[in-house]
Amino acid sequence: MDVVVTGFDPFGGEPLNPAWEAVKQLDGLVIAGNRVHAVQIPTVRFKAIAGVQEAIRKYDPDVVLCVGQAGGRMDLTVERVGINCDDFRIADNEGNQPVDEPIVPGGPAAYFATLPIKKIVAALTGHGIPAKVSNTAGTFVCNHVLYGLLDILARDAKKRRGGFIHVPYLPEQAARLKAQPSMALATIVEGLKLAVEVAVTNREDAKVTGGTIC
Amino acid sequence: MDVVVTGFDPFGGEPLNPAWEAVKQLDGLVIAGNRVHAVQIPTVRFKAIAGVQEAIRKYDPDVVLCVGQAGGRMDLTVERVGINCDDFRIADNEGNQPVDEPIVPGGPAAYFATLPIKKIVAALTGHGIPAKVSNTAGTFVCNHVLYGLLDILARDAKKRRGGFIHVPYLPEQAARLKAQPSMALATIVEGLKLAVEVAVTNREDAKVTGGTIC
Amino acid sequence: MDVVVTGFDPFGGEPLNPAWEAVKQLDGLVIAGNRVHAVQIPTVRFKAIAGVQEAIRKYDPDVVLCVGQAGGRMDLTVERVGINCDDFRIADNEGNQPVDEPIVPGGPAAYFATLPIKKIVAALTGHGIPAKVSNTAGTFVCNHVLYGLLDILARDAKKRRGGFIHVPYLPEQAARLKAQPSMALATIVEGLKLAVEVAVTNREDAKVTGGTIC
Amino acid sequence: MDVVVTGFDPFGGEPLNPAWEAVKQLDGLVIAGNRVHAVQIPTVRFKAIAGVQEAIRKYDPDVVLCVGQAGGRMDLTVERVGINCDDFRIADNEGNQPVDEPIVPGGPAAYFATLPIKKIVAALTGHGIPAKVSNTAGTFVCNHVLYGLLDILARDAKKRRGGFIHVPYLPEQAARLKAQPSMALATIVEGLKLAVEVAVTNREDAKVTGGTIC
Repeated sequence: MDVVVTGFDPFGGEPLNPAWEAVKQLDGLVIAGNRVHAVQIPTVRFKAIAGVQEAIRKYDPDVVLCVGQAGGRMDLTVERVGINCDDFRIADNEGNQPVDEPIVPGGPAAYFATLPIKKIVAALTGHGIPAKVSNTAGTFVCNHVLYGLLDILARDAKKRRGGFIHVPYLPEQAARLKAQPSMALATIVEGLKLAVEVAVTNREDAKVTGGTIC
Repeated sequence: MDVVVTGFDPFGGEPLNPAWEAVKQLDGLVIAGNRVHAVQIPTVRFKAIAGVQEAIRKYDPDVVLCVGQAGGRMDLTVERVGINCDDFRIADNEGNQPVDEPIVPGGPAAYFATLPIKKIVAALTGHGIPAKVSNTAGTFVCNHVLYGLLDILARDAKKRRGGFIHVPYLPEQAARLKAQPSMALATIVEGLKLAVEVAVTNREDAKVTGGTIC
Repeated sequence: MDVVVTGFDPFGGEPLNPAWEAVKQLDGLVIAGNRVHAVQIPTVRFKAIAGVQEAIRKYDPDVVLCVGQAGGRMDLTVERVGINCDDFRIADNEGNQPVDEPIVPGGPAAYFATLPIKKIVAALTGHGIPAKVSNTAGTFVCNHVLYGLLDILARDAKKRRGGFIHVPYLPEQAARLKAQPSMALATIVEGLKLAVEVAVTNREDAKVTGGTIC
Repeated sequence: MDVVVTGFDPFGGEPLNPAWEAVKQLDGLVIAGNRVHAVQIPTVRFKAIAGVQEAIRKYDPDVVLCVGQAGGRMDLTVERVGINCDDFRIADNEGNQPVDEPIVPGGPAAYFATLPIKKIVAALTGHGIPAKVSNTAGTFVCNHVLYGLLDILARDAKKRRGGFIHVPYLPEQAARLKAQPSMALATIVEGLKLAVEVAVTNREDAKVTGGTIC
């Protein structure tokens, strides 16, 4: 089997994107017998989804995991849901800044990720890597890609599965930006490898709470 | 026209619920010509939605605004979306603690609130009341009621509109719980009145960003 | 007996200072038989201390309580200690921006507040007002005045007592600044009245922990 | 020249202390021509200071750097000042829990660290390691040792210099404790090495702000 893992190019003035820095280290790995293909996608409305679509055509993966930078978060956050709404607080890398526009006109309001998010969180924290379920991927290009990916997969005859993980800033970003939590690149890479392993080896998720009160 | 505003009873060991403390002060008010009906609903799975359903039958409102406590938040947060997922981190007031169960089996993954959330936030902050859009109402009874309300309204021939606002702890809760942000009851009440006024007088929302990167 | 309570003028671009907004409401009150004199002092190095000195000469108070704005804090924070160090992250209202300069050359490294800080915190939280002990008043004009006040009192033959309370932003500031905790003016005023009452009626503090691990 | 770097044993129910995990990796290193001696001290009132005193006698160091765990902080925080106050929120490892007791009866209210704290922070952030100056080391055993160390050095004929750095939780602690920032052990170790190098090669600090407003 094949696995596609995507990471974005840098955005918002940052010189690097920790998602891509980590994802590119997974390229070519064989995890639980599955070959990992790392693919960079642009932080650009629609082009990001097109990049995912192209990778699916090219690698015919069983699992697609998209990864993005979540400045301000301290854990690896495994996203539960993507919503059909682009509301960009900042412009993307080509200047698009939609407000409350659908990603897929007429599409469902949301899709749930089809990876075992609870098992991924349990595996990460069990290996000493801070992680939790997140109930919002925001309304920028990360949510855009998560929704777009799940929409592609929902229309696809093959039973591919997909999801999204947000990663914190790297220490070198936090050192410059001040007062931001961070995570070492090695920890992020280890976490993503584990997430891929759990994703490819588990079709069912665990019945354990990952909820929040609000 | 009539407006229903709901608040929950206390939960999680708290002696009061700031949502209900505020909401009950709106009962009987006439705002922009609309009579406000305050309704308490139980912090109980399905019974909370039944309470909303009953209030809609009883008062035939044009607008329904549900209000809930968001311990840890510092602003009035106007919810954008309710998702079809119950994942209760704690038990509700009758001991229910579902994990990843749908609220409406076979229902859409999510509904977007149909109140003008950007205009509400703008009105609140313009009047000096801390507020912002939220992209997750959690996965407990608050999200449960938001999704349930929007599902009722979506199936309803009448073009009723609905949404949800989360409110912070009251100062007296924060004083006891330690290290929690809070908001004075008078500020919450003023904010909810303004929200109702904006909701009843605006069918269209403003095209201004209320998004988050993640 | 007489009590002096000081508040600063606005700084850092803010149109108001919640400390002065609250403090001025205490002017002329009689609390536990003590007359309160509210005095505005400038957010200016040395001139702030001179303002405190002048108020002491004028009102011959038994207790001096200085109050300042602590943007970002969510509680009323009762300061334990002032340190002999000016390290201004921003310029004061006359453009002074010292780095690591003593407030009183040759003075002790620090003074402890001589008000019953634990009893004040207990009274506030007991009345439902979020409060805690703080172990740093920063290194800007607030700490400057706290140290300066305690230095004046230490050299004074009269056994006057003094301390400092930091107050959060007002809601109207937080609504504009975004993502900041706040406290209603009425809550701050009530808290300061209680603090004065506890200060004038208690020479000894309670032996209860108000410590932090770090 | 010789350098002593101390770390505490675990406390508060944690199975390890990131301070000691990092410090022990420095043992025997030669940094800028200075031999580093790593010394574990107990998280126990007075015994911690005795451990520092014994290490000074044994190694006759030019510089002493004490290191402690700061659960909840996200940066390496270089402490500016130790205060003469023990106010333990939790019991230490032998059950001591003093409230508002002096560390050195009759001692000065505080001592300022005598390491170049601004240069250390600049070196760390310049190397991509999140760091900042802290104006409070708390009121538990960390502050206790910082004050105790500086008191020893102040009474010592030799011009030894000393200071304190707080380190975040390790990822494995944050994964278990939930919702806590963390820093990789390798990053902490690299930061401490840099801090030692800056400390031994700089007697004067830089005139750059490291202040906070409050």
